[in-house]
Amino acid sequence: MLTVHHLGRSQSERIVWLCEELGLEYELRKYDRNATNRLAPPELKALHPLGTAPVIWDGDLVLAESGAIIEYIIARHGGGRLALPPAHPDYVQYLFWFHYANSNLQALLHRYMIARRFDAPADHPTLLDLEVRLGTALAMTNQRLGEADYLAGKEFTAADIMIFFSLTTVRTFISFDVAPYPNILRYLQRIGKREGYRRAMQKGDPERAPLLS
Amino acid sequence: MLTVHHLGRSQSERIVWLCEELGLEYELRKYDRNATNRLAPPELKALHPLGTAPVIWDGDLVLAESGAIIEYIIARHGGGRLALPPAHPDYVQYLFWFHYANSNLQALLHRYMIARRFDAPADHPTLLDLEVRLGTALAMTNQRLGEADYLAGKEFTAADIMIFFSLTTVRTFISFDVAPYPNILRYLQRIGKREGYRRAMQKGDPERAPLLS
Repeated sequence: MLTVHHLGRSQSERIVWLCEELGLEYELRKYDRNATNRLAPPELKALHPLGTAPVIWDGDLVLAESGAIIEYIIARHGGGRLALPPAHPDYVQYLFWFHYANSNLQALLHRYMIARRFDAPADHPTLLDLEVRLGTALAMTNQRLGEADYLAGKEFTAADIMIFFSLTTVRTFISFDVAPYPNILRYLQRIGKREGYRRAMQKGDPERAPLLS
Repeated sequence: MLTVHHLGRSQSERIVWLCEELGLEYELRKYDRNATNRLAPPELKALHPLGTAPVIWDGDLVLAESGAIIEYIIARHGGGRLALPPAHPDYVQYLFWFHYANSNLQALLHRYMIARRFDAPADHPTLLDLEVRLGTALAMTNQRLGEADYLAGKEFTAADIMIFFSLTTVRTFISFDVAPYPNILRYLQRIGKREGYRRAMQKGDPERAPLLS
């Protein structure tokens, strides 16, 4: 039996969501952030040397890191569903957006969040540079979502599961406006209607309405 | 014919190295950082909306993002070599370290680099927090490299190609000491002797000796 350790308002929402989309049986163990500093509690930190969510257990296996967990679950428990194989015409788009989500967009948002903790003036060159990069990232994503309903193409895939956190939940930590990006807005609403997504958010983060606009 | 666009002292060294390890034919196009601000030149930025290295061309395809490019080249041109399939006993370690490299370690180093641009006192809580996280990351990597010669296990894989940049070239931008981590040091020297790595660095960054200690 798969156990998914989920920290509220964190990247582990991806794993709950993946399990719901794949219709897997799993045990959900939930952890709340400290109300004051918003950090993970010691019980979550103790699960893996990284001390971050998500973490899964599968028999003797303890695995961290969203991208690795998603690939693992799809390969071992999902029969390959929600991933695109090399022979698929949208394989390259799938690969790009899957990796882009955490290596680039989420990493950029995290840098921006950190940079704003130094109370620098709004015109500090590093802040301005990060804002330009964020604009570029959102414009590129918006353009892609004008070409196709999902990041890889016609089909909903794990690339969407990877990126969605950075367009929604992250905005409860660092606000940025998605209104100038109409294709992103439509995408948030399209995904927000998925049964799998709604079940995952109801189970994992029931006290919080997803930011879909 | 594959074209690899390589920006000096950047993550694109991974792609040059991968091509050398796989013995692929490819055209190498090199770009130098601006001597003053160390940013990529306009010709590199024009290759892809992201404006970052690496970028490859393969026929009509234009692809960015290290992790995606490495998976693509291995699948389409490498016959699957240097990746581990789900049936391999070291599959999970391979997945973890492959994703950890850019989504976590490199992202953390990038945050640390950004944070230091604000000239905050050395005991600023955000700087201290990032230093603790970096120590945790290096300790975890050091422990793994005490269990096995390579990140995935006995075999050299693309997970090593992903992480090596963050342990070496990154230190020309933000210095951190690897001396307290003897297994990492031995690993740097082990990888540094590989013919494929040496050829890649000689072709891609001939003016710079890799930081192997």
